[in-house]
Parts: sequence; C-alpha cells; structure tokens
Amino acid sequence: MSFNSFGRVLRLTTWGESHGPAIGAVLDGCPPGLALSEADIQPWLDKRRPGSSRFTTQRREPDQVRILSGTFEGRTTGTPLSLLIENEDQRSKDYSEISKAYRPGHADFTYDAKYGFRDWRGGGRSSARETAARVAAGAVARLVIPEVSIRAYLVELGGDPIDRSRFDPDTIESNPLHCPDAGAAARWEKSLDAARKAGSSLGAVVECVADGVPAGWGAPVYAKLDAELAAAMMSINAAKGVEIGDGFAAARLRGEENADPMRSGPTFLSNHAGGILGGISSGQPVVVRTAFKPTSSILTPMQTIDQDGNETEITTKGRHDPCVGIRAVPIVEAMMALVLADQKLLHRAQCG
Amino acid sequence: MSFNSFGRVLRLTTWGESHGPAIGAVLDGCPPGLALSEADIQPWLDKRRPGSSRFTTQRREPDQVRILSGTFEGRTTGTPLSLLIENEDQRSKDYSEISKAYRPGHADFTYDAKYGFRDWRGGGRSSARETAARVAAGAVARLVIPEVSIRAYLVELGGDPIDRSRFDPDTIESNPLHCPDAGAAARWEKSLDAARKAGSSLGAVVECVADGVPAGWGAPVYAKLDAELAAAMMSINAAKGVEIGDGFAAARLRGEENADPMRSGPTFLSNHAGGILGGISSGQPVVVRTAFKPTSSILTPMQTIDQDGNETEITTKGRHDPCVGIRAVPIVEAMMALVLADQKLLHRAQCG
Amino acid sequence: MSFNSFGRVLRLTTWGESHGPAIGAVLDGCPPGLALSEADIQPWLDKRRPGSSRFTTQRREPDQVRILSGTFEGRTTGTPLSLLIENEDQRSKDYSEISKAYRPGHADFTYDAKYGFRDWRGGGRSSARETAARVAAGAVARLVIPEVSIRAYLVELGGDPIDRSRFDPDTIESNPLHCPDAGAAARWEKSLDAARKAGSSLGAVVECVADGVPAGWGAPVYAKLDAELAAAMMSINAAKGVEIGDGFAAARLRGEENADPMRSGPTFLSNHAGGILGGISSGQPVVVRTAFKPTSSILTPMQTIDQDGNETEITTKGRHDPCVGIRAVPIVEAMMALVLADQKLLHRAQCG
Amino acid sequence: MSFNSFGRVLRLTTWGESHGPAIGAVLDGCPPGLALSEADIQPWLDKRRPGSSRFTTQRREPDQVRILSGTFEGRTTGTPLSLLIENEDQRSKDYSEISKAYRPGHADFTYDAKYGFRDWRGGGRSSARETAARVAAGAVARLVIPEVSIRAYLVELGGDPIDRSRFDPDTIESNPLHCPDAGAAARWEKSLDAARKAGSSLGAVVECVADGVPAGWGAPVYAKLDAELAAAMMSINAAKGVEIGDGFAAARLRGEENADPMRSGPTFLSNHAGGILGGISSGQPVVVRTAFKPTSSILTPMQTIDQDGNETEITTKGRHDPCVGIRAVPIVEAMMALVLADQKLLHRAQCG
Repeated sequence: MSFNSFGRVLRLTTWGESHGPAIGAVLDGCPPGLALSEADIQPWLDKRRPGSSRFTTQRREPDQVRILSGTFEGRTTGTPLSLLIENEDQRSKDYSEISKAYRPGHADFTYDAKYGFRDWRGGGRSSARETAARVAAGAVARLVIPEVSIRAYLVELGGDPIDRSRFDPDTIESNPLHCPDAGAAARWEKSLDAARKAGSSLGAVVECVADGVPAGWGAPVYAKLDAELAAAMMSINAAKGVEIGDGFAAARLRGEENADPMRSGPTFLSNHAGGILGGISSGQPVVVRTAFKPTSSILTPMQTIDQDGNETEITTKGRHDPCVGIRAVPIVEAMMALVLADQKLLHRAQCG
Repeated sequence: MSFNSFGRVLRLTTWGESHGPAIGAVLDGCPPGLALSEADIQPWLDKRRPGSSRFTTQRREPDQVRILSGTFEGRTTGTPLSLLIENEDQRSKDYSEISKAYRPGHADFTYDAKYGFRDWRGGGRSSARETAARVAAGAVARLVIPEVSIRAYLVELGGDPIDRSRFDPDTIESNPLHCPDAGAAARWEKSLDAARKAGSSLGAVVECVADGVPAGWGAPVYAKLDAELAAAMMSINAAKGVEIGDGFAAARLRGEENADPMRSGPTFLSNHAGGILGGISSGQPVVVRTAFKPTSSILTPMQTIDQDGNETEITTKGRHDPCVGIRAVPIVEAMMALVLADQKLLHRAQCG
Repeated sequence: MSFNSFGRVLRLTTWGESHGPAIGAVLDGCPPGLALSEADIQPWLDKRRPGSSRFTTQRREPDQVRILSGTFEGRTTGTPLSLLIENEDQRSKDYSEISKAYRPGHADFTYDAKYGFRDWRGGGRSSARETAARVAAGAVARLVIPEVSIRAYLVELGGDPIDRSRFDPDTIESNPLHCPDAGAAARWEKSLDAARKAGSSLGAVVECVADGVPAGWGAPVYAKLDAELAAAMMSINAAKGVEIGDGFAAARLRGEENADPMRSGPTFLSNHAGGILGGISSGQPVVVRTAFKPTSSILTPMQTIDQDGNETEITTKGRHDPCVGIRAVPIVEAMMALVLADQKLLHRAQCG
Repeated sequence: MSFNSFGRVLRLTTWGESHGPAIGAVLDGCPPGLALSEADIQPWLDKRRPGSSRFTTQRREPDQVRILSGTFEGRTTGTPLSLLIENEDQRSKDYSEISKAYRPGHADFTYDAKYGFRDWRGGGRSSARETAARVAAGAVARLVIPEVSIRAYLVELGGDPIDRSRFDPDTIESNPLHCPDAGAAARWEKSLDAARKAGSSLGAVVECVADGVPAGWGAPVYAKLDAELAAAMMSINAAKGVEIGDGFAAARLRGEENADPMRSGPTFLSNHAGGILGGISSGQPVVVRTAFKPTSSILTPMQTIDQDGNETEITTKGRHDPCVGIRAVPIVEAMMALVLADQKLLHRAQCG
C-alpha cells in the first residue's frame, strides 16, 4: 500500500533524495540462505553509475553499497535487507536556479502542487538517483531466480532503430550505449554528441528479455505478470510507454499472425506474445520494451513559471545525461528481476 | 496483495468465470453518502454488453447488475458494495473442443501450467467476461470523482489510424466502433467485415482522456499515477502495450520538443506528458493509449497441442468479437475511473 | 489494505449487511486442486446458525451457502471463491426503534459519527451476521491445512470458569454451550436462563487450540503469528481481549516458570508460550483465548440519546443471544483456520 | 503485505538486528509540512534507552537517531522518512553460548525451524532492540495526531497490581518503573531487586490511554481500531495478551453493567468499552492493556537442547532487563501513536 514500496511477497521499499545524506532500499521477504555480500551488488551499481562515459552525467558518485541488515555469515537470514548508498557529490549550488522556477518536463511543479513545497536540490525524491536503490535490490532479486537470465539493451535512440538482422548480443557490452547493433551504435554516438553540443537531449527505447522463466508465473486478474511488469517499468523515471512482446505492433497484426502456434515439447513456433498469456508466463522468453522520453534537463532555454506564477525562462545547467535511456538499462533489468522474483515466490505460495 | 484485487484505498475485488452461475465485484472503501442505485451502473454495462452490433460477439447476456450490499436508502454507506451479474447464456457446448486442446494466443496452456487444470468453459476466469465486473465498479468510481470526465475511443484499428485533423468527439457515439473520425469509421467497418468473413480478427489502439483531474494526484515512486494506469490497462484482456501522453513517440522527440512549456495560470503550452509529471498529475488532461492484440479466437485453423502434448489443429467456433478493442472502450474508461478515484482518496489521506 | 479484507496471500473479503438481500465472502489465493463443494462448508455454518438452542437468538436463517465461482468439476481452480448466503428472515420491523436512538454498547453511534448515517436495520454491517461469511471461508481454509486440527470451546461464562481437571473433549459437542466440563455446563445453563429472564446477558471466554501446526509458521516482526491471531480474534464482534498461551497469567509468572524447557525430539516440557515463540510457531499446540463481552442488546432499559442528541431510553426487543460467546465458537475456529492457512502459504512463499 | 511492515497508509518498515551495524525505520505516507528534526525523536528514544536505571539492561547504547531522508528545511516533504540508529555496544562475546543452544522462551528454536539458521548474536532480528525503530517512528506519528495525547504506565508487576484509588498521573514519571501508584512502585522495586538477585525475572501489564481521539476513526470489519491495536501490541516482544477497555473483565459483567450509557453531549457515563464500539472510536479515551511475560533471559539454568538436538542446560549471562514490561512503556505508546495516525489518515481517505 505504501507509496514507496513495490512487490507483493518480495517487497522493496526505497527512500532518499538526490542531495540528502544517503539513499537506500529495504528488501523484505527474501528467502533465507542465499549467499550474499556487497560484492554481489556492487557490479550492477557500477554498471548504472554516472560518469562512466561521456554519454552520461559527469556527477561523480562512487555508489558504494553497504548491507546493514539481513545477512549473517554471508547468507541472507530471511529478515529485511537494508541497503545503504551514501550521496557524496552533492553540489547543491548547481541547483540554486531551480529552487524557484519549475523545470518543464520535471516533477517540480507537480510536487509543489501535491505537497505544498519540495526539496528542490537535484529533484529531491523525483531524481533518478532513487533508481540506484532499485539496482541494488535487483541484484538481490537475481539471486532469488537463478534459473532466469535477464538482459536489456537499447533498440532505438533518437528515433533511430537498430537493424534486427545485425543483432549481436556480444556487441551490447562492447559499446557505452548498450546497443546490440554495432552500426547503430556508431550512428547513435554521433547523434548524442550533436544533441549534447546543441544543448538538447534524445529519447530511447530499451528492450529487456528474461530467459528461463518457467511456465506458470503470474496470476489473474490484477496480479498479471504483464500488468506487474508494466507498472514496474512505468515507475522508472522518464518512462512513457511499455509493451509486452509485439506490443503496439500486435495491434496491427491479424489474429492468425499474432497467436503463437504450439508444437509438442511444448514449444511455440513464434513469440509474439512476449512469453505471457493470460497474465501467466508461457515458458518462452519474457520480452518487455520501455520508451524513455528525452532528458528534460537541457541547456536550451525553456518557457516556464516560478513558484509565484510569474513567467520566466529556465535552462538546466547541472550535469545531466543527454539520453536517460542509456543509464536506464540496468534499472530496467533490476525491475524485471524484482517482478520475476516476487512472482516466483507468489506462485510458490499458492501452488506449492 | 490478492491476485484478484486492484486499488489501494478504493479496492476492487472481482470474481467469477465465464460459464459459472454469475460474476461479481466487491468494491471496498467507497466514500459514504453517494447517491447510488443500479440505474447508475446499468448504462455502462449496456455500453459494454455483447451483441449490440455485428462487430461484437453474438453471445446474448442481459448483464443486469444487482447491488447486494453497501447502500441504504439509495446512498452508499461506506461499507463494501457487492455487485452481482448473473451469467445467463452459458452455451458450454460451444466450447467442448477447447476442453482438451490449447487455443493459441489464449491462457489455456498457461492456466494448466500454473494450476494443473483449468475451467475450460469459455476460458473460465481468463475470459473477458470478467471485465463486466470492472465496468460495474468503474461506474461507482465515476461517482467518487465528479470533477473528472472520462472518454475513450479507438484511434487505430487493424493498423489503420484515424486522421487527427478530423477528430470529432460527437462522432464517437454515432458509430458502433467508437471512432472519432467518420472516414476512418467507414473504412474500419469494411476491414472488420472482411476479417470476419476470412475467419480472422484485427487489433486496435484505444485512447482514453480524463479531463478535470486536478494537479497533485499520484505519488512517488511506486504509486506513480502513470505506473498505476499502466498496470490497470495492461490487466485488461488482450492488452499488449500502454503509453502515457506521447508515449513511444516521445522517445523520438528532442528534449526541447518534448518538455511542455509553462505559462502563468498555470497553463501548459502543450501536453506531450499526458498530464503526468514525476508520477503526479499536472492538471492537464490525463492521456493513456492501450494496444489490443487481435482476437485470438478465430476460425482460421491454428497449429497447437492437446493436454497430453500431442500435436493437433484448432479453430475456435464460438461467438467472438472480430476486434476485442471495440468492446474494450468502456473497460478502459472503467479502469481509468478506478485508478483516479483511488488516487484521489489516497491523496486526501496523505495531504488532507 | 481494504477495510473488509483479511489475510496476506490467502485473502478473505466479506460484504453484506444484516438485513440486505445477502451476505458473502470472496476468498482469493486458495491453492488449486482442493476437493470442494457446498457440503464441505455447510456443516460449519450449521454449527454457527442461530436458533439451534434456547441459548441463541431465535432468528431463523437457513444459511445455505452457494459457491458461485472458483471451482470446476468439484475442485478449486486457484481463482477466487465467491461464497453467497442469502438473508431470508429480515424482520426489519423489529428494529424500527433503533433507527433513531443509539443502543449502548453497539456501533450505532460510531457508524453515524464516521459515515454520517447508517443502515440501522439489525446493525447493518456491524451485525454479527457478517461472521457467517467468515465461517464459510474458514471451512475452505481448513482444507488448506489438513495437517492441523482446530477446536474451540468456552472456558468461562458469566465469570464462572471451568474446572480444568474435569476437562473432557467429548463433552464439548454434547452440550449446547460448547463447554468441556459437564459440571460447568449445567451451572451455565442455569445462569443463562436466569440472565435471559432478567432481560440481561452474560460474557464468556473462548479458548481455541490448533494441533498439528508445524514449527516455522509466522514471521517477524509485524507478521507475527500471534499478532495476526490477535487481530483476527479482536475483529470478531464483541471481542474485548485476546491472549496467547498463558496470556495475562504469564505476567504473573517468574522467568523460570514461564519459559518452556526443551528436551530432545524436540519436545517442550510445558506450553506456557501457547505454541508461539518470537512470532513463529514452535510445533506445540497453538492456544488462543478470546474474551467476549455480554450481549449489548438487552431488554433492560438503558440511558441513551437519539440522533439529534436528545436523551432517551432504549430496550432492544429483537431476538438476541443471551451470550454471544456461545455462537462465537465456530467463528473463532474459522479465524484460526484462516490465519494458519494464510501463514502456511506465506511461509511457503519465502522458505519454499 | 511485507513481514516487517506495519500500517495501511502511514506505513512503517523496520530493519536491523541486535548486533548488526545499525537498525532503522522507513516511515512512508507521512503528511507533508510537519516540522520535524532529530530533536523531536530523541527524547522518546532516551526514554526507552537501556541503562537508565538499575532495573533495565546495562547495555550502553546512545541510540542517537539520524533522519536520512524525507525532510527539507526542517519539515516533512511527504516522501519516506529514513531513520537510522547505529548499534555501538555490540559485545558479541556475551552471546557465544547461545550460538548453539536454544534459550527457552526465546525465538532461537523457531527461527532455526523457519529459516534453517539464525543470526544468534543477541537474538538477531528477534531482539527487542528492533523496538527502538518503532519508538523513533512513533515520535513522528505523534506529530500526525496533535489532537491526541498518549500515556502508558505499568498497572501490574510480578502479579502485584496498583491500587486504582491511589492513581496519580504525576507519579508515573517520578519513578523508574512508570508506576502511577507510589506505594506499588516501592513494593515493585523490592520485588525486582529480589528477582534479579535470584537470577529470575518478572512479568508486567502496561496500560495505555489515548485522550483526544475523535469519534469516527477505525473501520469495519478487519480494519477495526481494536483489531489494529491488538496486532500492534501483540507484535511487541514478550507480549502475550491484549485487551481493550474492560477486556477480560468485561466477560464477567452483565449486559447492563458493561454497555456504557449515553447522555447528551454526547457523553458516556462510563467507559467499559475503552473508547471503541464496533471497531470505531467513540470519542472516549482509547484504553489498551498489554501483558508482558517475564524476561526469558535469566541466570537460572534451564533445560534445553542444542542445534543438533542434544539435551543440555543454558543460563543467559548477558545484560538483560529483569522485567521487560518496564521498557515496553514507550514502545506501547509508539505503537498506539502509529495505529492512531494511520487510522486518522485512512479515515480522511474515505470520509474526507
């Protein structure tokens, strides 16, 4: 029920603001006995960490995670895991301008409308910094579902899609844009450099595939696996769309094109469904795509108003990602892991 | 937490199978004192009801709702509303063929994989019949948010989009396809007739707009208004994609194109965001689009397997909608109403 | 989260008023494949049913349960079970007097204070009639925990306790007061007859024992088995106290008297703890006692006020139980079953 | 749903073990704009802190709370409050003996039974140290309900009750036992000294009264205010019984003695109900009593078994409270505040 919690039996609660002393996650309901130390979490945080290439914000955060509870002698005890990440690079001065005016495309105005005031330092709670807590928790969730492997990557950047025929999984990690098509990666680098120089930003679409999900996870009607994934992905900063399998393209297919035929095994002859039928996994790869809008923090001056309603202009001078979709990749993976781990446990509850 | 419940403080629980004696909804947390009788609910059910045109299934269900609890002397008492709809036209014989073989694109296989067996009559719990309970509850939710008006319509059918310049709200109710563009409506009727004759089916995209939502509903981080809407829409049968505002198209815009400028009022000069910033409503219209796959129940023979794993073919001879997206319109509206009503109450809880 | 729901993964939602057309329960999360028909539920409702002896209200309700969803070919499908009981004997005229004045000890005043008005017919939602829905659901919960046997009985009535040395389990069913001590049963019958003739009523204490609960159910910190049981029992109408094991008497023991020694087996040499340590079952019998106040509906005139605040007197002339504790026995058992079944599934979720 | 969370719209999640680096609380759903700093919380922690008299454990913990999130410029922002308390005095060596054998009356055995192993240092998660996090959160909850004043005190220690005719509220803070009867306080000090010298321990009963709760908080049926309070109190370490108003004594009253008459005002002529009717507050003081068993950690040797099932003896040599009920006083107050604050917000959600 709480606003900052996610999940049903494996339940994540995150806390923290961009420029407070720390951010963190409490993960409750984790099965006992899993081998876990900071070393299992840190690599995923490093993958998300800002400043790793010229295509991400230059804010320098070591993002060192500490496990404050829930393990003993290197294993999870079944009690809540408290994961803490200190904020170190808190240059509040960068944000002085936004303390009064609302940045278009940001939550500044809506937070004020809801709460009456806001922590304007770096966006406060609405900052994407919160997602570090998700990535940390997602690393634990992966341990709950060793049978599943999860991989996300960009399939489109600035409206420029990859060529599916050139998809090479090994390419994903070899470029800073998590792009599986080397040709597209090269084009995207140029687009990003141009956008950054122009004080602009670009959007992206992230695809995430989970292999190894057995048939049977998920549930009717409001705990559908696809509904859970949709909420999980849409809760990520800057997400504006989510689709499963063929998604919006499925709406352009005919019935006989879209329904995946079955053969003995059981196997499916296609996967338009994205691995989910009736809200329950089918045993095929679970496929989710999430659309991310272009970064709203840009150097281009934008018309806006201040807190008193006076019209003004704003440019956001801080250190920002020219395309938030790039750094969304490990976050999308973390949310996939959290949803699947939760659903695994939930399935076990009901069906043994 | 429960699998068949939805909402936080205004909480809907639905029950019932396609061919059981009845289906129903329990809506808990409704504010007291609202004028409510069956007459407030029935029109919405009539709108959803099958058999109203040649473009929807010919199953004949009167879908008469009864309020069994939660009202007294014509007003809600604050206790749970139990809404009951009897199933009358239960031609189980139509479904004898599917009792053994799995219909591609349906939940038959996954229900068996999860639960070990299934109620195969008409899809059981996975049938879109469940959505009648949502529509009934959505009618009550509308009463909780009288400040909001909600309207859904099709913007694309079989891959053929409307022409936005010809958008006429009055046209929506004047054609059986809920199409706001008279020219597109005419084309779509032909496409649907052709698809039906060919034993096939078509997909569609439904757009839903909520006007009058004040700024401030929704919450960080996992109770974001857009995340709630994404889960709500994706939980509808045959939904494969959800987007807010510009959605996937936002991923193709540049930062300065996408961020909606503000002027005093406050007003926004555009609504790419679809009325939600940082998970909280901005006071602009809330805009959600949902993609529905083509009906999986088709006359075209499909390859499949039976429960013993043997390969076979199946055609679904029952009475089915050639495009489930058409009848999804009132369901999408109901889910929008339920999410907004819940978030209104939730906002009131925290912020008074 | 909802007001009228109970449980975590096995989740009960009840609805209905004393004098509406029906009451009911929706039980979600039940494991699939359990053999279930109305015949599994009806005996427990019959045990609770009013009018079975002169010591219970003479309201005549057949309390016939119908299963409207969630089973197929005699087995649970894993989808929500909808259980419906029609109200037949709705003599609203009996309650005309209480439509304006508040009955002391009842919820009349507080419902008005909360909701602005109330369904005054028989107490509406606050009537103990709601507990029939719990008993029906509890019958299903028992099927989820076949390893457990649950038995409740009265250990005190009107301040007169049983003699523990004369405890005979076979006696419980042989008297209408669910009393395990034949001598106490005889005394209690006289007390009850006297109280009824005097237009008064008596309180009681119900003890419930669950045998066969394995060690390991329950959880820290707020899902403690004893905390869940406390909420479950205190939610029953007229309950004013709950204790586990020695309960309040434990507060009068010394540490070495209270802590139950262990021997190999493992066995415990005593059960002061009532089968729960640190919120988790120990493998010993789970023992809970619940105190029920005397029936508030009495013929003795009581000082009160009407809805306009004017002082008046009221006597409650309807048909009432002289001691609600007697009919609480099957309700207490049902709540024990629901809590244990839920915790069994919850334990399975986390610990496999 | 989570095991370590409590509350519905004001939701507390706690984490941490007795001998880990820290413990903490995340409080989500707090209304925005409340003035809050560590200085609002620290006094309540100081009240609970061990080592403040010879009647509490000599473990020395400064229990300094830090607010890591959720405030800005001295006010709550509406985002989650993260409260952190470092563990400083972690003498793990004191607990070496209990690493292998199960302490009778403790959760050692049941944690092993549930999770397969346990953090044996000081009881790990089952330690009463967790309650510091509740006290910190309770201090915030008090700010949510400024209309309510809450006071708890002991009414019985070692089976020796106070004399109600000598009840003096000013006495409560003037003795280290939170006793409102100076005569009883003197007797209890002697009893405690004797018990401690004998290597034993004593139980106690804590009464908590909340004044100022308006009529209308709480809800039927499973969100009853008394059910919530019962769960809250029973979730405290060593609690074995909870009662509302007259509680178990109400079961010994006659109907006309127990039902509180009303006069215009509205006022009640008595408060046997403890301020709650039908699960909803009546406007009278809310009265709850909780029974605490004697401390299980005693110097008297107890029969037990080790992890391999071998029979042995154990004495618990660490630093322990001779009566845990004494330090329970601020914890009971905190739980009362958390329940009431949550119910206030929940009432506002539904009823405006």
